[in-house]
Amino acid sequence: MPIYTAPTKDQVFLLDDVLQLSTQDIPGYADLDRETLDAILGEAAKLAENVLAPLNPVGDEEGCSLENGVVRTPKGFKDAFDQMREGGWTALDCDPEYGGQGLPYVVATAVGEMFSSANMAFNMYQGLTHGAYNAIHAHGSDEQKAMYLPKMVSCEWGGTMNLTEPHCGTDLGLIRTKAVPNDDGSYAITGQKIWISAGEHDMVDNIIHLVLAKLPDAPEGVKGISLFIVPKFMVNEDGSLGDRNAVTCGGLESKMGIHGNATCVMNYDGAKGFLVGEPHKGMRAMFTMMNEARLGVGLQGYAQGAVAYQNAVAFAKDRVQGRDVTGVKNPDGPADPIIVHPDVRRNLMDQKAFTEGARAFVLWGASMIDRAHRNEDAQAEGLISLLTPVIKGFLTDKGFETTVLAQQTLGGSGFTREWGLEQFVRDARITMIYEGTNGIQSLDLVGRKLGQDGGKHVMGFFEMVKSFIADHKGQDEAFDTQFLDPLKAASKDLQAAGMYFMQHGMKNPNNALSGSYDFMHLFGHVCLGLMWARMAWTAKGKLAAGDGDAEYLTTKIATGRYYMARQLPMTATHLKRIESGADPVMALEAEAF
Amino acid sequence: MPIYTAPTKDQVFLLDDVLQLSTQDIPGYADLDRETLDAILGEAAKLAENVLAPLNPVGDEEGCSLENGVVRTPKGFKDAFDQMREGGWTALDCDPEYGGQGLPYVVATAVGEMFSSANMAFNMYQGLTHGAYNAIHAHGSDEQKAMYLPKMVSCEWGGTMNLTEPHCGTDLGLIRTKAVPNDDGSYAITGQKIWISAGEHDMVDNIIHLVLAKLPDAPEGVKGISLFIVPKFMVNEDGSLGDRNAVTCGGLESKMGIHGNATCVMNYDGAKGFLVGEPHKGMRAMFTMMNEARLGVGLQGYAQGAVAYQNAVAFAKDRVQGRDVTGVKNPDGPADPIIVHPDVRRNLMDQKAFTEGARAFVLWGASMIDRAHRNEDAQAEGLISLLTPVIKGFLTDKGFETTVLAQQTLGGSGFTREWGLEQFVRDARITMIYEGTNGIQSLDLVGRKLGQDGGKHVMGFFEMVKSFIADHKGQDEAFDTQFLDPLKAASKDLQAAGMYFMQHGMKNPNNALSGSYDFMHLFGHVCLGLMWARMAWTAKGKLAAGDGDAEYLTTKIATGRYYMARQLPMTATHLKRIESGADPVMALEAEAF
Repeated sequence: MPIYTAPTKDQVFLLDDVLQLSTQDIPGYADLDRETLDAILGEAAKLAENVLAPLNPVGDEEGCSLENGVVRTPKGFKDAFDQMREGGWTALDCDPEYGGQGLPYVVATAVGEMFSSANMAFNMYQGLTHGAYNAIHAHGSDEQKAMYLPKMVSCEWGGTMNLTEPHCGTDLGLIRTKAVPNDDGSYAITGQKIWISAGEHDMVDNIIHLVLAKLPDAPEGVKGISLFIVPKFMVNEDGSLGDRNAVTCGGLESKMGIHGNATCVMNYDGAKGFLVGEPHKGMRAMFTMMNEARLGVGLQGYAQGAVAYQNAVAFAKDRVQGRDVTGVKNPDGPADPIIVHPDVRRNLMDQKAFTEGARAFVLWGASMIDRAHRNEDAQAEGLISLLTPVIKGFLTDKGFETTVLAQQTLGGSGFTREWGLEQFVRDARITMIYEGTNGIQSLDLVGRKLGQDGGKHVMGFFEMVKSFIADHKGQDEAFDTQFLDPLKAASKDLQAAGMYFMQHGMKNPNNALSGSYDFMHLFGHVCLGLMWARMAWTAKGKLAAGDGDAEYLTTKIATGRYYMARQLPMTATHLKRIESGADPVMALEAEAF
Repeated sequence: MPIYTAPTKDQVFLLDDVLQLSTQDIPGYADLDRETLDAILGEAAKLAENVLAPLNPVGDEEGCSLENGVVRTPKGFKDAFDQMREGGWTALDCDPEYGGQGLPYVVATAVGEMFSSANMAFNMYQGLTHGAYNAIHAHGSDEQKAMYLPKMVSCEWGGTMNLTEPHCGTDLGLIRTKAVPNDDGSYAITGQKIWISAGEHDMVDNIIHLVLAKLPDAPEGVKGISLFIVPKFMVNEDGSLGDRNAVTCGGLESKMGIHGNATCVMNYDGAKGFLVGEPHKGMRAMFTMMNEARLGVGLQGYAQGAVAYQNAVAFAKDRVQGRDVTGVKNPDGPADPIIVHPDVRRNLMDQKAFTEGARAFVLWGASMIDRAHRNEDAQAEGLISLLTPVIKGFLTDKGFETTVLAQQTLGGSGFTREWGLEQFVRDARITMIYEGTNGIQSLDLVGRKLGQDGGKHVMGFFEMVKSFIADHKGQDEAFDTQFLDPLKAASKDLQAAGMYFMQHGMKNPNNALSGSYDFMHLFGHVCLGLMWARMAWTAKGKLAAGDGDAEYLTTKIATGRYYMARQLPMTATHLKRIESGADPVMALEAEAF
């Protein structure tokens, strides 16, 4: 059975020392001193380690089942869900007006990593509910909010997002689900939705489906999509549950991973629905939540890497095989632990450097969302919009890769189900696909976000990196050569890539689109490089001040140095690929494949 | 259900045009004209496409079962195995003295790709038998050969390789299985072996286990290991089967993939065994076969990529979603097929360029093995020894990556079991692990092979690349800039990496070992670059001569150009990682992880 230990120490370092939450002017942050953080994260850690993690292989093995329309979650899930609800973990960053605790999103994000690492399939039930909560909170009427939100905050009721149909996922303009007005102001929703996570299950009393559908007078394409609330059970005015609505689960998807989560075919047969926001503005309503939802998926990606890494380390310390070529390390044993071998180290350092860098990136991103939402900070909103596809695409690609590396550390044991590593690989794989495939993320980045507001946000990002380098240069020679110089070089590669798009993308947009995926990764590396420089600088400062755990801080700096020396140079190859343009990519006719 | 079409056209191009088999001085090659090749490969294709491929998802879904010591293979496997045997496919390159067809190994390799792509788990049953055949053929006594080989050639009997024990895999010096001499010249074998592919099953009448064990007087470590034949049923002098031997399957491994292959725990309880070759020389006997066995795993890796790619292409041509930004391509449909989108192209080209390059590399490698075995060509033996870890490590890493890319092409469908892509991913994953993990391959390459015979073989490789460039330079400007220049640059990176190891590895071996994995990949890229240059040159020559299918040849050149422009530049980053040395990798104490 895999192990899991929540990274509370690392999270507190990031939140309190690097991001310095409590010194920021964001509402709700001031009270978040170190002790409070420690207490919140410590409690979450207990739930993650003791309740959720042990259920992860159970959920994978048992999966969900559908019988007579009823979806059963794996044994133990309902009880764990109750514990999560009762502990208030589903309400962390929700609006106090509807029973939420009003904590910052960044804190909920830190907790979310733990829950995702411990049991991704399980945590999705509340994750989806939270997404639906957000959409209703932002776009619903006061009546809708009052009716649905309190029970969604407490997760007595679940929530879902219904976008995909059998013939369309990425291209939502093609959806066929219809919404026909009823006499009472409601709508009759008819159509089929697929791949609906948590679409039906036995852990909640009601499920509030958010469904994209087209009104009879809808314009063509994405501009004709409206958003509807379709409750599984109708809700009476007094809040009690009424009739069963005409929405049913028609099947469960058999899939590579996240077996503990029910991925449903949902059939709407004239189900009663209620318009959210304005007609035909459903995409906008759905996409308001996109930054947060996609950041959540980026988090899932690296969170699987994080737990896989822990298991790889445990194995590498325990398994003895071969001898250290520079001198025997375990003379009393038949062989040395494999962690002595440089190639095992290389593998573990790749995992560690990515995971910790990704954690910083996501928490930084979450703090931008807090700033955007709570301070109405347009600059933060612009920057997180730009970085969201990077967080989603880069962190899930690399997170998956990290689970594969961790599996490799275990050799043959990594391939067996017994050790659990292969589940992390299978579960992580979906994060590269859902909530917009990573290819779509790269298009969003290059096709939309780069040029948004006249390129202001990407310029702002470059400026930020430049300032960081200028502000810290010349104070510590090792920091300059090990952190600032590589960061500068990588950032130059990113600018050169952007320049290439500007110069050649006008002539032929395919010159930009052929390089979009590499650009997303190039950008991701620069972000992680910046994160590592910030973390290392903070660690150096604390070390110099004699403040904190010296071993932890030294390790942090060494891990950052590894990232800068061994991962960041990847930017040069990404640039080279980008600069080769569209010709090699588009040379063939479709028939030649 | 996934599709599969055997790549016979591509294989004939490689065997006949690029490698020019029939013009070579290798015994058995002269008869291999184009028609003969077409006929052999065409027949193999039928079996692969019509019989093996349809059983692939069946094997995955059903898996193997163990009941009262009997292992049942999935439904349909036995019948398919009979068809494979009866078609003579198990005997292709075997010694005619024992019933083999005596065809070159390179031809068996081409057939092996088809069978592996179609059904990897299934093909392993005969693959393992072939490995055991090889070991007995090379090291067994005449009596042993006469007794076991004919039925192993026909696959009426199976064969296995028993190396790993619960506490050791990589470090075989630690094995505990004992061989105690009996009075009759045989040995009593006692111990437990794990992860034994095809260790027990219901498709053959007998199974000939090759088992590594220690004699009572054995020296410590790998120099004290002997190799034994342990038949499941004793074989009487007349060839009939006698008593059941004391070897039993104690359990089946539950694993991520290759469910159709029985991965067995094998218990030897004083089983009767027969020494193969000399006492204490078992490792040498086992390792004689290593080049071939590891090449076979490299083949499995890219073969999974190859079939996954075909399915990705089919999906990308069929699925309509979004519009080509440069102009609508499918005006009568609701959207364009996704193959119009540059990022989908990028993804498909990555798959295609790798797969075809890998196919060339493996066939070239197999022809070297033919030359080494049939012409006793020491140079070929040296070169293939050097390249074997590259073939195994690089092609399985990239082959797995290719299955992941192909899965990504399908978006959400790639994650569902229904489309079969996720099975290719899960099956391909083992190739990076077994037959020596890829980390071990990289150690073998850098720690042993580079310096072998005074570095003669790697020097020979560099010389070969240099000569190729010199011989072809200045005849075709596009070829120079698109193929020769990138090849030269990549080869320079490889030489620089070798130089770094020489200069810094003496001082501290960890400077070399920390870069071994990157070196293996760097080397792999240079090999594929060389393959692509050779293929493109051949294609250009045929085009100029008006010989062959112009569309196929033009596509080949364009695919090569993609590899050179977009994949090969990876060598620079590998070099940079290597040149960062051991410090970043080894900075932490084991406790700091």
